[in-house]
Amino acid sequence: MSERYGYLGPEATFTEAALIALMEARGTAYAARVPMKNVDAALAAVAAGEIDGAVVPIENSVEGGVPATLDALSAHGRLQIVAETLVPITMVLAVKPGTTLADVRAFSSHPHGEAQVRGWIDDHLPNAVYRPASSTAAAARDRAHGTDAAGAPVDHQAAVCPRLAAERYGLEILAEDIGDRQDAVTRFVLVRLPGRLPRSTGADKTTIVAALASDRAGALLEMLEQFSTRGINLSRIESRPTGDGLGLYQFSIDLTGHIHEARMAEALTGVHRVTRSLQFLGSYPSADEVETTVAPENTDAAFADASAWLQRILTTGK
Amino acid sequence: MSERYGYLGPEATFTEAALIALMEARGTAYAARVPMKNVDAALAAVAAGEIDGAVVPIENSVEGGVPATLDALSAHGRLQIVAETLVPITMVLAVKPGTTLADVRAFSSHPHGEAQVRGWIDDHLPNAVYRPASSTAAAARDRAHGTDAAGAPVDHQAAVCPRLAAERYGLEILAEDIGDRQDAVTRFVLVRLPGRLPRSTGADKTTIVAALASDRAGALLEMLEQFSTRGINLSRIESRPTGDGLGLYQFSIDLTGHIHEARMAEALTGVHRVTRSLQFLGSYPSADEVETTVAPENTDAAFADASAWLQRILTTGK
Amino acid sequence: MSERYGYLGPEATFTEAALIALMEARGTAYAARVPMKNVDAALAAVAAGEIDGAVVPIENSVEGGVPATLDALSAHGRLQIVAETLVPITMVLAVKPGTTLADVRAFSSHPHGEAQVRGWIDDHLPNAVYRPASSTAAAARDRAHGTDAAGAPVDHQAAVCPRLAAERYGLEILAEDIGDRQDAVTRFVLVRLPGRLPRSTGADKTTIVAALASDRAGALLEMLEQFSTRGINLSRIESRPTGDGLGLYQFSIDLTGHIHEARMAEALTGVHRVTRSLQFLGSYPSADEVETTVAPENTDAAFADASAWLQRILTTGK
Amino acid sequence: MSERYGYLGPEATFTEAALIALMEARGTAYAARVPMKNVDAALAAVAAGEIDGAVVPIENSVEGGVPATLDALSAHGRLQIVAETLVPITMVLAVKPGTTLADVRAFSSHPHGEAQVRGWIDDHLPNAVYRPASSTAAAARDRAHGTDAAGAPVDHQAAVCPRLAAERYGLEILAEDIGDRQDAVTRFVLVRLPGRLPRSTGADKTTIVAALASDRAGALLEMLEQFSTRGINLSRIESRPTGDGLGLYQFSIDLTGHIHEARMAEALTGVHRVTRSLQFLGSYPSADEVETTVAPENTDAAFADASAWLQRILTTGK
Repeated sequence: MSERYGYLGPEATFTEAALIALMEARGTAYAARVPMKNVDAALAAVAAGEIDGAVVPIENSVEGGVPATLDALSAHGRLQIVAETLVPITMVLAVKPGTTLADVRAFSSHPHGEAQVRGWIDDHLPNAVYRPASSTAAAARDRAHGTDAAGAPVDHQAAVCPRLAAERYGLEILAEDIGDRQDAVTRFVLVRLPGRLPRSTGADKTTIVAALASDRAGALLEMLEQFSTRGINLSRIESRPTGDGLGLYQFSIDLTGHIHEARMAEALTGVHRVTRSLQFLGSYPSADEVETTVAPENTDAAFADASAWLQRILTTGK
Repeated sequence: MSERYGYLGPEATFTEAALIALMEARGTAYAARVPMKNVDAALAAVAAGEIDGAVVPIENSVEGGVPATLDALSAHGRLQIVAETLVPITMVLAVKPGTTLADVRAFSSHPHGEAQVRGWIDDHLPNAVYRPASSTAAAARDRAHGTDAAGAPVDHQAAVCPRLAAERYGLEILAEDIGDRQDAVTRFVLVRLPGRLPRSTGADKTTIVAALASDRAGALLEMLEQFSTRGINLSRIESRPTGDGLGLYQFSIDLTGHIHEARMAEALTGVHRVTRSLQFLGSYPSADEVETTVAPENTDAAFADASAWLQRILTTGK
Repeated sequence: MSERYGYLGPEATFTEAALIALMEARGTAYAARVPMKNVDAALAAVAAGEIDGAVVPIENSVEGGVPATLDALSAHGRLQIVAETLVPITMVLAVKPGTTLADVRAFSSHPHGEAQVRGWIDDHLPNAVYRPASSTAAAARDRAHGTDAAGAPVDHQAAVCPRLAAERYGLEILAEDIGDRQDAVTRFVLVRLPGRLPRSTGADKTTIVAALASDRAGALLEMLEQFSTRGINLSRIESRPTGDGLGLYQFSIDLTGHIHEARMAEALTGVHRVTRSLQFLGSYPSADEVETTVAPENTDAAFADASAWLQRILTTGK
Repeated sequence: MSERYGYLGPEATFTEAALIALMEARGTAYAARVPMKNVDAALAAVAAGEIDGAVVPIENSVEGGVPATLDALSAHGRLQIVAETLVPITMVLAVKPGTTLADVRAFSSHPHGEAQVRGWIDDHLPNAVYRPASSTAAAARDRAHGTDAAGAPVDHQAAVCPRLAAERYGLEILAEDIGDRQDAVTRFVLVRLPGRLPRSTGADKTTIVAALASDRAGALLEMLEQFSTRGINLSRIESRPTGDGLGLYQFSIDLTGHIHEARMAEALTGVHRVTRSLQFLGSYPSADEVETTVAPENTDAAFADASAWLQRILTTGK
């Protein structure tokens, strides 16, 4: 039986595009793709074993998602990130074949999608009315079907949506890459039940959530020193209130390196000691495939040397 | 002539509620409130001197806003945060007077608003259809008017929106505080042209954006040590790509304390030295009014003592 | 056959007093005590297996000794400190029975001994002439014998020496504790061939010599962070040129704690990684018997917890 | 009237050689040189204004002196180091003209001098008897005069002493550089009453004594971070008990840089804040004349830029 993977729906959004990219990279392109109504539902289904994994946005998404994903990953604590991918967020203007720009009196999109293309719309469709949709893909689907999800007729002639949605619903693309910012990218992660960790590739990330034990100046530094004393770099850090009390924070952090590497393993035990709680969310290949530079004193070999030195002293006294 | 303040529109959203709260706190409740179509437009109007200030969401907003605000504050670099306020994000179910729950076959809200009340809707309106709106306030306004902004008739019977929107549009509140999370809060800031800094109150925040000079392990720590060596705490830190190159980050940071305090002034000059760029966004009273605890070695008196000691040596040799 | 212990001679100096104290504490008071002509000779004899151990001064000695001991310990790298003791350095004025203060026209001592009692001599024997001796004990012995080591007659009537020397040579004590400083103390260590480490007592010291890999600002800090991130305190630190080049230093350091404790073991492996060389000189009970205070995050239990947490993730993925 | 400088006597020791070197370097070679009986007396005479300055050994001396000098500098707290010099400690074998090696049946020196040349004596004068002297120079003087300071005849044929002492007392040098270690060097400092600080040369040292406020792990690090956050290197650090209580330490530290440099000035005010006491002993040209390397972020220019940035914000709000 083929594997089944969930993603933040509806279908044809950037999240499905991310899942397709991840499946191709893993050589499992024929797995079934299951749209889920929100991040929490997707992760709950993984936790319950109903699906084999789920793809959810984690960083910088134009469709929101980051805090929701981080919260849901914490809530379904047993889950594990096993891969990530970066998807450029480029919008197209999609219409029924035959429709021209002059025909477009109203367009639809998710409010975030609309916000992203305001400059292009002002230039090319200054008189077009905006019709909100619950997702960019829904705007495309409604245009293709002529009705919304509840069956009511829709009166927009164009959808602002991902290329995938235009193709999925047989729409024609009148204009490509119409976002005001050309460099928008969303980072998606593939989440599974815990099991074998992805093997270390030399270009990996490790994601954790740690709550400081106190709010005194220096508590954050104390945690970060656990990384710096082993030469581990941070590629993302975000403070978030723990909800347990004023002034207490937890930090969502991406680190460069893999828990199979000695410096990361020791650093994480250090963080475990000095924090109130530590959640390991996964070690997985970095999407950018840039090999991590490790100083000589922080290599596995240096750790092995130091460990051998210690063992010699503990057994022979010198 | 009375002052004019912009806010992230449309009217009757949580941002207008934040502006009202800030104006009351400042004793300028009669200032004119001007809705702006987005954060960038609001800040541009402040920068151009067209309005006296603007209120924008900066953290944890359910309506998005954080990255957009931080980006816009950086882009309009001359602006300065002079106040902050925290607004609880509580949704109500608002209807035309006389409508009952049984009458609600469809409801409208911004997709984020809909996401927040899904649990309540499943329990109380399991068969109701969702109609997307471009904002929670727009859902209320459309219900009150019976038409959308473009004049087309709407067919939803209820709006999920802030209390302010229900009141503004003469709607009746069928249910209060219907969000799935009871503790959602958004932090808003009041932004003005630079001028006199708000005076130090003993319970202040300072907001900066700093770009590291390199991505080596320890560069972040080096910056944070500038704070810890003067006993300054962070209440928020978020890494963000600079866009200038792979692996280079800037950090958006809130600090406890005021630039008029010696420890903060010296720490910021230290950060200025060790970073590639440093942007000061303001020192302003903290919304929580919790007085900052300062260790004896970091008080203004300790800095003054140390400075007097240094001057004595520089002038007398001892 | 009874054990034989060397000490920095000649006999009846403070070093022999230290050896006696250490032997009593260890319940081996009947071991033979062998005076050695200098620290290097004493340690060479231990290294060669000719004696079972040696007692040498390591810190703050009025008879010098510290740099010589540290150098010799480094040179005979296989040796190990297994105990320490603190000996108060109190001088007496010793004479042949029957001699009175009025009879003393000349006194003898090591130049350091003479320097220590100058105030007392100025007050009580203002006209007495000083005769240098090669050690405080030699001054006492020469007075008792009436001749020096080479058989030449001596013409001093009093020796400034330790109580042990006065007793050993049958002299009478005319005045006690005549040093200008009442608090002088020398720390002595017992050195043996490597073997079983002394067991951890909860009040231990660990002595190391580490050479920094570079002379840049921060290299010392980088090493010390290996201790501070595990809550380990320093009770002594001294920089010393390595002799290998300008600006390169090694550090002789005493740490509170035992290598059998997890925080110390891990810290030493960290130092091993970040330094150019690391020499372990021993973990042994602290003479002051003050139990080391260990914060909850640095106890063996906290390390064991963290290690168990890591193992669980490495085996189950979570 | 010419200046008068004291030095740790007696005359013709390495300390007088250091004073001669320092006077030549300062172009005041004709100042009077006054031998003082010990370091404390020399510094007391400076403090009392009886002499214009004093030269005392501070580091690594084979004639002791370091702890005594550091203590005396602390006790006479108003004094200031204005220069340093390094003197190679090389011993000669000096005899009355005409005496040959075969004639030497006994030799004299300070016990430290004797310890230094033991190897050479064993090789070249295996049967010679050792006669202790109160200083290496006294051994030379006594040989020249044929009597000791008290007028008693001496029976040694050779003195182990500095070249300066041999020359001063008209002795012939039978062998040069006879120490077992060829690289012994002592560092001497010139101490004066406080006044104008020596000007910054770009290759300077600053000497301080600081007492930590507590003995917790990290208190030392907290102090050292005041240096590392401004890129200041340590060239010497020694812990010393304060005498005020168990476990409390003060640190005698040499830093690379001058108090006239912004990074040093700010670092010292930081140390002033975080320590229990701070004593400034002087900023003076480094004997090695190696220019201090300063990273771009720690130059006076970087500090001036940061200060200008701060002033702009404090006055204009941005």
